[in-house]
Amino acid sequence: MTTIAHCTSALLSVGDELTLGHTLDTNSKWIASALRDLGIVTTEHVTVPDDLPAHAHALRRLASKVDLIISTGGLGPTADDLTRQALARAMDDRLVEDEVSLAQVRAWFTGRGREMPAINAVQALRPSRAAALQNLHGTAPGLMAAIDACDVFCLPGPPGEARPMWASCVVPRLRPPQGRTVRTRVLHTFGIGESDLATRLGAMMERDRSPLVGTTASGGVVSCRLRYEGPLPPEEADALLDSAAREVRARAGEFVFGEGDATLPDAVLGLGRTAGHTVGVVESCTGGMLGQMLTEPAGASAFFVGGLLTYANAMKTALAGVEPALLGAGAPGAVSAATAASMAHGGLERLGVDHCLAVTGIAGPGGGSAAKPVGTVWIALASRGRDADVRRFRMSGARSAIREWACKAALAMLWQRLSGVGPVKLLRQDQP
Amino acid sequence: MTTIAHCTSALLSVGDELTLGHTLDTNSKWIASALRDLGIVTTEHVTVPDDLPAHAHALRRLASKVDLIISTGGLGPTADDLTRQALARAMDDRLVEDEVSLAQVRAWFTGRGREMPAINAVQALRPSRAAALQNLHGTAPGLMAAIDACDVFCLPGPPGEARPMWASCVVPRLRPPQGRTVRTRVLHTFGIGESDLATRLGAMMERDRSPLVGTTASGGVVSCRLRYEGPLPPEEADALLDSAAREVRARAGEFVFGEGDATLPDAVLGLGRTAGHTVGVVESCTGGMLGQMLTEPAGASAFFVGGLLTYANAMKTALAGVEPALLGAGAPGAVSAATAASMAHGGLERLGVDHCLAVTGIAGPGGGSAAKPVGTVWIALASRGRDADVRRFRMSGARSAIREWACKAALAMLWQRLSGVGPVKLLRQDQP
Repeated sequence: MTTIAHCTSALLSVGDELTLGHTLDTNSKWIASALRDLGIVTTEHVTVPDDLPAHAHALRRLASKVDLIISTGGLGPTADDLTRQALARAMDDRLVEDEVSLAQVRAWFTGRGREMPAINAVQALRPSRAAALQNLHGTAPGLMAAIDACDVFCLPGPPGEARPMWASCVVPRLRPPQGRTVRTRVLHTFGIGESDLATRLGAMMERDRSPLVGTTASGGVVSCRLRYEGPLPPEEADALLDSAAREVRARAGEFVFGEGDATLPDAVLGLGRTAGHTVGVVESCTGGMLGQMLTEPAGASAFFVGGLLTYANAMKTALAGVEPALLGAGAPGAVSAATAASMAHGGLERLGVDHCLAVTGIAGPGGGSAAKPVGTVWIALASRGRDADVRRFRMSGARSAIREWACKAALAMLWQRLSGVGPVKLLRQDQP
Repeated sequence: MTTIAHCTSALLSVGDELTLGHTLDTNSKWIASALRDLGIVTTEHVTVPDDLPAHAHALRRLASKVDLIISTGGLGPTADDLTRQALARAMDDRLVEDEVSLAQVRAWFTGRGREMPAINAVQALRPSRAAALQNLHGTAPGLMAAIDACDVFCLPGPPGEARPMWASCVVPRLRPPQGRTVRTRVLHTFGIGESDLATRLGAMMERDRSPLVGTTASGGVVSCRLRYEGPLPPEEADALLDSAAREVRARAGEFVFGEGDATLPDAVLGLGRTAGHTVGVVESCTGGMLGQMLTEPAGASAFFVGGLLTYANAMKTALAGVEPALLGAGAPGAVSAATAASMAHGGLERLGVDHCLAVTGIAGPGGGSAAKPVGTVWIALASRGRDADVRRFRMSGARSAIREWACKAALAMLWQRLSGVGPVKLLRQDQP
């Protein structure tokens, strides 16, 4: 390890499966994000094939530009795993066997009732001036070294091995720029567009503000990221973020369903549990996706009871008790306010739940008409002792995107009811 | 455009949102994969921030190493979109306004009933020796140029704009190495491990064979990729691939559910439609995910009718008619062969379908016991006039992975029945 601060970093991903497009590199994103939260700026990502000269050359090139390199991949036991050799070459060093690593690799196998294959001994090699990092989730030890003034950490490629090694072996050794505190906080919204949220946040988003406020959109969830970076002590930085988070909620709180790692299903499960309520679903075009989302969080059984998948119209009648007259020719039809409401009320009674969400729509690509184009979705929420909340949405995009949005909109309607926010118009909702 | 063949390529992704880890780069994978299928080898991926010197430097560095650069991003209308300038600097050229591009950008807005904001005029700029590529799905024209002997194509970052531009403007201009034919074919399996499949394929997978045979695993689906690259005319190459595909099926055909873009739901939908059958589901631990998968393909209504989500035990009885005695103390319990079979038979009757899949298990992280650890899942398939197919699986991993695997195993059991392959033991199945 060198002693200079880690101001800038580069990420190096290694493997033919990445360069040739067989596998998607997902490590670079979370590593860059984690570095950013620590105040270390990543200035380049590079992916090289299983090629010793190219790999060693990339290490040297990057080491001349940044203070820190994080590499992933190339630490396996086979002939195409060359990170050990490439690092040695870039350091102008030779490989030696690390006795502790060898014992740990062997223990990994014996702990699983197997003998270590001879091939795995190569994983205990390291450059003589490098140190090995223990891998508790696989056989590949990591490596820690310096190329001139640049610190290098080499992690295994599988995220399930790289992430714990990152947390336990790398983060404690990082030296973000001195005298700087970096604190972040993320609030998640659903149902408001990114530009509308930005308009509400107004001057909060100016680039010279502290904390810095940014928004990102993914899968319909627009997240608002607050970031403090500066000289204040951590508790003062946190107080600034608390204040900024309160301001965000004051401006757009009716859409903020959670913070940090919370998902929409987490948010409704939390509120439902607290209220001691139960929920069920009656799904048509989403075919089970809404039930699947509600049962994603561990402990979902405290809230979710069951559901009816009424994909065919005959099932809407047989399972949820929708009047056949609603579905016939000249009637409102399967995709209508009346049918959605009837599905939700039918589910409420037949499932014996406190709340029932019903979704019926045209997910496409076929089945649309001028009056009901692809993307038309009716969602109803029935609750004991409350008026039903019935809304129409006009969505666009692929079948999968329409279905996913419909489920999230349904969850957002339930969130509005459980949180006491009350019915707030959601993005892509056009009625009422 | 230069006239040399495009043997090697590099991919350049541009944007702070990528280098800082806000956004996952998904373009590099599909572009590298598409190039590989054409016989062009990608030797490096690089991601640079919105920084003009770094961007121009990366272009020049890569241009000195490869025949072809494909860049994505940095073509938007705002001040941090610098691909036009970086390309000009790397080419030692100046920017000029492309009149056709300007008209096309303007037309994009007027076609949507809006006037072009003044800021978007910058998108019509190009280096004087570059050509613009029309964008039919957004406002950012692409660029085509040469840096010395290296051809460069710059595409917009959003995949929805980059992919069509790639297909229509880039692929026709690529020059894979002459005299070489490249043909690929992919067969998808489920239920056999990657190493078991490799063992069955044996010598077919040796690295000096033609066609080259490789396997990749993703989400439980193990795909077998056949690749011919050589001097044969395309129709002879295809005949070789046909023959190799037959050989794969001869060795592991009971697991091969489809080819090309086909998914497991596509495969069962195709067989169900052909047979004129219908299917329903009764789901416990998967909470709707199986119904969701069966309704992923367009046209699912020709096969999938509906389902019952019996997450709570009371719902197993109320909706699917499972005897309460099966679920009580000392009884087989909710996660058992008897309950799975009862759920499937109940669904068969109550949904009025030809086939019904039932899934009940312990997805975790809680709820496990010594006799029924987390990951224990029973799946039953009931069909009219046939004996039920009831199997136990022991899965590992996170809650989401256990649920996904359970659904795919259920689809594979249905595929085995519909395809006539008959019951074949699946990976992670331990009974019967």
